[in-house]
Amino acid sequence: MEDLRELLVKQLQDMYSAEEQILEDLPIMIATATDKKLKSALTMHEEETSEHVQRLLRATSLLDETIGGEICQAMRGLLVEGRELISSTEEGDARDAAIIASAQKVEHYEMATYGTLVTWARTLGEDEVADILEDTLAEEKDADEELTKIASGGLFTSGVNREAAKT
Amino acid sequence: MEDLRELLVKQLQDMYSAEEQILEDLPIMIATATDKKLKSALTMHEEETSEHVQRLLRATSLLDETIGGEICQAMRGLLVEGRELISSTEEGDARDAAIIASAQKVEHYEMATYGTLVTWARTLGEDEVADILEDTLAEEKDADEELTKIASGGLFTSGVNREAAKT
Repeated sequence: MEDLRELLVKQLQDMYSAEEQILEDLPIMIATATDKKLKSALTMHEEETSEHVQRLLRATSLLDETIGGEICQAMRGLLVEGRELISSTEEGDARDAAIIASAQKVEHYEMATYGTLVTWARTLGEDEVADILEDTLAEEKDADEELTKIASGGLFTSGVNREAAKT
Repeated sequence: MEDLRELLVKQLQDMYSAEEQILEDLPIMIATATDKKLKSALTMHEEETSEHVQRLLRATSLLDETIGGEICQAMRGLLVEGRELISSTEEGDARDAAIIASAQKVEHYEMATYGTLVTWARTLGEDEVADILEDTLAEEKDADEELTKIASGGLFTSGVNREAAKT
């Protein structure tokens, strides 16, 4: 059990670094997006992400631990790859599609990690920590669904383009 | 539209590298896991992953493209971090929890990417490609759900441990 507690703290610290890195990249995604719904969804998620950082601090403090100077290497890789994909496109639908793809990879990393953190916190009987992280998990899922809607409904699909794609 | 096609091909090539890297790491996860259900779920997913590689070759070939020598940096980061997390634990429940956490991050990366690929292929009217990738997406989701079940049900929860966690 002590091992699981250590794992929980380590992953909370890792996630703190991940969220901080996301906060650095979201403004670039917002600035380079064209679709209004996409810009708005990313802007809303930027506000949520700031709150997620605060929740991680609260959760860690509830466990009498602190956030150290860890760097989440996985998130670094995800964001580097995302930046490359986005910069390989021209402004407009293609860039928006690349931004959504990159953002959804980030969202899914968070969904996997917060899902794990909630399970571990519950197993340890740390229900207050689990509740806090569950709120974040729900917001990450919502953000991901919103991006799926925008990707499926808005881009490349207006009139002529949709038909052209089918020939 | 031509831009979206380029993005689709690039992401198919990226995913091929990701699946190949996963195939290298799965045997290590299987060998170091203790829980029988976990070992069995990972072994089944190893077989599926070999099939996913074949599907990526078929999908790329349907688009008259080839797989190059791309390296998926994001998957590299995910697997490096996973290996570190796993090796920080001792054999048994804690290691199994670390393996599941790492595997679910990998699954979620795949779910995000295959979800994007299916959307893009459908938008381009490439329904055969979309159908092939949708089969893989479904298997990734199933694998993730199975891991969630094992994480929530089997580990640290037998008798005394579950009660101890609540005190």
